[in-house]
Formats: sequence, C-alpha cells, structure tokens
Amino acid sequence: MVVLTSREEDELSEPIEFFFDFSSPYGYLASHRINDLAAKHGRLVIWRPFLLGAVFQVNGQSALMSQQFKADYSLLDMTRSARRFDIPLQMPDPFPVATQAAGRIYYWIEDQDKALARQFAKAVYGAYFGDNINIMPKETVAEIAEKIGFDYEDCICAINDETYKQRLKDVTIEAMNRNVCGSPFMFVDGEPFWGNDRLEMVDQWLESGGW
Amino acid sequence: MVVLTSREEDELSEPIEFFFDFSSPYGYLASHRINDLAAKHGRLVIWRPFLLGAVFQVNGQSALMSQQFKADYSLLDMTRSARRFDIPLQMPDPFPVATQAAGRIYYWIEDQDKALARQFAKAVYGAYFGDNINIMPKETVAEIAEKIGFDYEDCICAINDETYKQRLKDVTIEAMNRNVCGSPFMFVDGEPFWGNDRLEMVDQWLESGGW
Repeated sequence: MVVLTSREEDELSEPIEFFFDFSSPYGYLASHRINDLAAKHGRLVIWRPFLLGAVFQVNGQSALMSQQFKADYSLLDMTRSARRFDIPLQMPDPFPVATQAAGRIYYWIEDQDKALARQFAKAVYGAYFGDNINIMPKETVAEIAEKIGFDYEDCICAINDETYKQRLKDVTIEAMNRNVCGSPFMFVDGEPFWGNDRLEMVDQWLESGGW
Repeated sequence: MVVLTSREEDELSEPIEFFFDFSSPYGYLASHRINDLAAKHGRLVIWRPFLLGAVFQVNGQSALMSQQFKADYSLLDMTRSARRFDIPLQMPDPFPVATQAAGRIYYWIEDQDKALARQFAKAVYGAYFGDNINIMPKETVAEIAEKIGFDYEDCICAINDETYKQRLKDVTIEAMNRNVCGSPFMFVDGEPFWGNDRLEMVDQWLESGGW
C-alpha cells in the first residue's frame, strides 16, 4: 500500500489550468472537451480567460489569420477538427474581436460562483462560434450573463469596474510571464501544453504520469 | 459487394505526399512514423523534401525558433513528442541549417531508386537529429550517401548539377503554390495536414474515409 503525505495528495489532485481567449476557435473547441478529460483523471479545471491579443503585441507575434495562406489552412483545420468532435462551429464575422468585456464579467461571476462562471464562458463561446453573435460589445455579454441569472446593470458595472479590469490584466500578464504563447494553453502539474490538438497528449500524460 | 471503377480504385490507392525540410525536427519525427501509418491503410508515401526557409521568406513567416518564448515551448514539445514515440532526438547545434545539398542529392538518388532515396533521407535526418552532425556541407551529405552505396564524387557532382538545383527549387515553388506552410506537411487525397501532431488525424481520416 502506498501512503501519500497530504502534500503528495495535494499535488496529485492539482487542478489543470486552462488559459483561453474568448475569440479563439481552438480555445472554443477545447472548452467542450477539457472538463470531461480532466474528470476522467479525477482532476478539476481552473478556467482562466486572458487577452491573447495583448500577448501577441508584447511578443511581436502575429495572429493566426494575418497571413492568407496560413488563414486558409487554419480555417480548414478548425472546421475539420470541430466536425471530428461533433462540435458546432461556424467561423464568426467579424473575427477576431476584443474580449475585454467577456473576460471582466467572467472574473466577476467567478468571485460569486465558479460553476456559473464556466456556464457563462460556455454561453459566450457558443454565442460567438455557434450563433455568430459579436461578443465584443458590453451590452451583448451583459445580456448573455443576464440569461443565466445575473442582473444586466450589475454586469455593465462589473465591466467598468477597475477591480475586474485589473484582474483580467493580471491574468494576461501572468500568462505572458509563464510563456503562454497561444490559446488554448494548459498547465498540467506545471507541464505546459499548447493547443486543442495537445488534449490527447494531456490525456496520455495524466494516464501515465508523464514521460 | 461494392464494385469499384478503375478510377475509384486509383483514387483509393493514391499515395500520401509527405513534404518536409531536412532541418525540421517535427519533420524528422514524422519521418519515423509516416510509412507505417500509410502501410496500415494500404497507401504508399511520396517523400518530397523542400526548402522551408524559402517558403518562410516568401510568406514573411518567421522560423519557430526566432522568438524566445516560442522557442522554449517548441523545444520542450519536440523532445516530449520524441520521447512519447521512442524516437531519439537531441536538438542539433547549429539549428536550423540550409538543406540544399541534402535535397539535391535526395532527388538525384530518387531518379535511380526510390527506396534508396528514402534510406538516404532517413540517414540525413538521423545524422542531424540523432548524432548532431551538421548536414549543411556538401561533403557531409555526400559522405552519408557514400555509406549507402553511392560514389562520393558523383554525389558532389549531383549537388552542383543544374538539374537537381532546379528540381529542388520546383518542389519548393510547388509547395508554396499549394500553401504548404510548414514541415511536415501531408496531402491525403488532396486534403492538407500540417504537422507531426496531425498524423493521428491522418490515421483516422484514412480509417474513416474523411468527415
């Protein structure tokens, strides 16, 4: 029998960190899969929306869609990946969009209820990539939050609240400092995995304990 | 019983095209796996070395290693992927290197014997990513070809031969025209797949006939 110290137990059950931008199609795809995958291995997931555009600016990186040849391939690969996992996806227009409003409301809800925050995140993703609703306007994300039980005016206030502006900024800076270079980006016991296409590897990593 | 027309049979047995650069770590990893994967589905593979650096220049793309934060992650991911598939990999120094010499000899050998050309390609990849031998110099790749039975001086001549300079250039231009935006890059019945990490999807694609 293996007896674990409480510290070892804590390490074993360390949640998976899931960094994503609300405007990221591969983040959207991963959002459909990450919690089931984690649950299979007895893990929780901490959802951490951040601003990928800000990371790109600091790093001098260019967006996936900024080069036509890469954009064409990416579009094909995204929709092919969505079909493979039976996830509804239509590329929204405009794309990409700024996601400050969604990110700030996310953290405001999270301070009240983590499960509802995740539900909100899924609703935002679903609106953008499922129903082609532009999720940039404050009013739109406030309406999405209203549908899951929050007060519309409170949501608008949260978006304008310095606390949540700063919270989203802090997570984004933390992402930069931890070399999060795309969306989705997962940390599993400190090991970084970039991309929806690394979820199979995350699965194997959790299964085997790493290699 | 399904009766196929000869045209349908031809389509079913269309070879997989495998575009790669000799200086590409993920191309190296895929080179260990692509033929077994294809054989499982009764497919052949056409190996098509090209010059990724030229594609990057034309497209204004930057190399994987040109940004530190991305380089760090990529290095971790490459070695982790190599360990996963039990493929020996040590990142060579210098990296990347120009691969004109290897590409030209490849096509010169291919004109004589396709299987030997593949053997040569594997030997070049093994020298670079297995034994940290710089594969840029003509002399080095001529020695590698010599070891599998070719005359050293003939190899040097082939590298300087306008025919093979042009052949490699033609394949590279074809790659650009077909939006090959990285290495490895595979075409399966016209469907493009980019990356060693898409081989599982290629496998499923061949298994299911696509989706």
